Amino acid sequence: MTSLSSWLEEKLLQLNVTDKMELPAGFSRLSYTKEEKDAHIQFEKVATELGLHVHQDAAGNMWALWKVDDLAPTIALGSHLDTVDSGGGYDGTAGVLTALAAIRELQASKFEPTKNIAVICFISEESARFGVSTIGSKAISEILDKQELAAIKDRDGISIEQAITAYGINFNTIDQAAVPAEKLESFMELHIEQGMELENAGASIGIVKGIACPVRLKVTAKGMANHTGTTPMYRRKDAFAAIAPLVTFVQEEALKVNEHSEHPLVATVSTIRLKPNVMNVIPGEVELGIDIRSVDDRLKRNFAENVKSYCMESATKAAVEIEVATLVDNDSVMLDDAMHDKLLKASESIGYKSLSMNSGAGHDVMNMASKWPAGLIFIPCKDGISHHPSEYTSIENLENGTKVIAEFLKREMEE
Amino acid sequence: MTSLSSWLEEKLLQLNVTDKMELPAGFSRLSYTKEEKDAHIQFEKVATELGLHVHQDAAGNMWALWKVDDLAPTIALGSHLDTVDSGGGYDGTAGVLTALAAIRELQASKFEPTKNIAVICFISEESARFGVSTIGSKAISEILDKQELAAIKDRDGISIEQAITAYGINFNTIDQAAVPAEKLESFMELHIEQGMELENAGASIGIVKGIACPVRLKVTAKGMANHTGTTPMYRRKDAFAAIAPLVTFVQEEALKVNEHSEHPLVATVSTIRLKPNVMNVIPGEVELGIDIRSVDDRLKRNFAENVKSYCMESATKAAVEIEVATLVDNDSVMLDDAMHDKLLKASESIGYKSLSMNSGAGHDVMNMASKWPAGLIFIPCKDGISHHPSEYTSIENLENGTKVIAEFLKREMEE
Repeated sequence: MTSLSSWLEEKLLQLNVTDKMELPAGFSRLSYTKEEKDAHIQFEKVATELGLHVHQDAAGNMWALWKVDDLAPTIALGSHLDTVDSGGGYDGTAGVLTALAAIRELQASKFEPTKNIAVICFISEESARFGVSTIGSKAISEILDKQELAAIKDRDGISIEQAITAYGINFNTIDQAAVPAEKLESFMELHIEQGMELENAGASIGIVKGIACPVRLKVTAKGMANHTGTTPMYRRKDAFAAIAPLVTFVQEEALKVNEHSEHPLVATVSTIRLKPNVMNVIPGEVELGIDIRSVDDRLKRNFAENVKSYCMESATKAAVEIEVATLVDNDSVMLDDAMHDKLLKASESIGYKSLSMNSGAGHDVMNMASKWPAGLIFIPCKDGISHHPSEYTSIENLENGTKVIAEFLKREMEE
Repeated sequence: MTSLSSWLEEKLLQLNVTDKMELPAGFSRLSYTKEEKDAHIQFEKVATELGLHVHQDAAGNMWALWKVDDLAPTIALGSHLDTVDSGGGYDGTAGVLTALAAIRELQASKFEPTKNIAVICFISEESARFGVSTIGSKAISEILDKQELAAIKDRDGISIEQAITAYGINFNTIDQAAVPAEKLESFMELHIEQGMELENAGASIGIVKGIACPVRLKVTAKGMANHTGTTPMYRRKDAFAAIAPLVTFVQEEALKVNEHSEHPLVATVSTIRLKPNVMNVIPGEVELGIDIRSVDDRLKRNFAENVKSYCMESATKAAVEIEVATLVDNDSVMLDDAMHDKLLKASESIGYKSLSMNSGAGHDVMNMASKWPAGLIFIPCKDGISHHPSEYTSIENLENGTKVIAEFLKREMEE
């Protein structure tokens, strides 16, 4: 039998459908694409090798089950295999891989589980394609808004319904992926940290208490499109020139807030759509997307209010119309205290330096937490880089994570 | 026989392939699309009704000929029928329509021409789809760079070659649209002003001396894409935050320059491409397009240099890489003095208040001017608005323009 590290190395490549991890363009497995499906097929292969029973649910999530007894409780764990455009091969994949690896560890040690174990490979966690995230875990947790979903299209005008149909799923029945509360006992996910706290603290394992959910704003500035060559400067209503200072404001204001707040806050103008976006026409309309996060819900909401005030002032100054819409405003998610403590104990019992911390990023676990006791393990990733081709975590980190999960599962059986 | 104004009203609709001019979304007839072709088909119908012989050349331009004698010289006139996305129904169309109307006027007055008259409906004047403008007139003037063209794609990844092929034209032979210098005696175009000088001067007709050609810059800022939720503010290399102040700089610097320069200057950040442009990723790369114009070539080049210096300072300050590429830098085009004087005399002889002026926008005539004596007539358009659904000029203005063209043609025959 190959060593755990060799197995992780091999299966990391396999789940990424690649023969090497260092790719200049990174990995692009967007929601409900052939690329995501190809990765799910690899998941099925690896899980089947481990003797697990694999099936796809009504939303496209894959379930790999180590079944002991129909009447025994089921512990669920897992993550996702989709990526952003030109993303890395660890965000999501690390969680799916270590979940499977932990089962392999239990099997290798001839451990006999007394509860069923389910590894879930969630579909479509990233919002990169449709602007909506964690579709698979929302469906399982019964918090998917199918009507909202139906209205959304990707940049090429393909609706989610079309994409899901092309994926081979019936859009009308995706809500049948919902799992009754009593079917699972708990859920846990492992994920790369996507930050630098573990590295800075010299810790190998992070156990998450709370997840900072974003406030997301859409700022629309409406000026007047006109010919760039023939419209004198003093007669313009250039929507881009009017709204561009907001980008600087968001950056500088966020830096300022961090100087004297207890919890950190991050704010980013991350998207733009310019109309008509051609060389010889003055921008008539601009749409900016702003992402604001902090585990301190009051702090992020105050920030959003400041952005709105700034926009109102800009509108008056530049004589353009500016509207601010709140796309998302969710409370931060606090994970289950008992799960947190169990995971922390499992990690410390192996001797890993462990850090109790918060998460700046959302994960499938935050949906699962709405229905089941849920926990989240972080492993470090290099320089905190994620959603980028140079995203990286070591096999050693994956090994550590695997061992914590295996230890946690063992302890759950001994209860 | 219907009156000139009724005819103009009717044919304006026909060339715009519409039954009313006031459309909230305006007109979208992008380069080498079915929509452009549909308009060309209407051109053929109208020209045929006038007894002209119509043919399409190797680049897709339509020629409508009033042939008197194979050995007689040919006076050419015309404009284009393509538009920007959500543009107006007068930019280009006004020139095609009044050229045809002028012929109808000559016919109605039983005028017997001694020279051939050719109305050209140029293909693909606007750069909205492919970023390259005046393809048809460049082909006729023999200044089309087919190799450069071959490399260009539209936003959907469709190459010019694919688009041209789909249009029914052989890309390999588009240069055969070139017309030998001796085949034409002169060229003139009528166009809506797309500015407010005529309105401000209370003039009905403008006769153009020079055309301000743009300097166009592409500014690329490279930072580092990363997760918006997990990357602290102080550890970011946000390319958008780094380059956004440039938009304000361009606007304010252009306003400043106009305070003490003899000729006006206009400068616009008109395009942007953000990578990856998704909500939860810090912008890793930004590409801005800047359009700078003045008939004073030194003024516009100084401005471009200032933009470059500003970018170099920004790069140092924000610790991102910034590159500035010059996409276009052409000298302003001075039109033929004799043509200018003839058009001015023709206009004044009818009694129109006429203004000798410059053009801030490029037109097909600037290519034709590289090979033939060429002139450009402006008629006013409401509030100077163009490239926008509310673009408008009156039937009266179109009538005035038609009469100037007819008068010019008559005078050319009497030489």
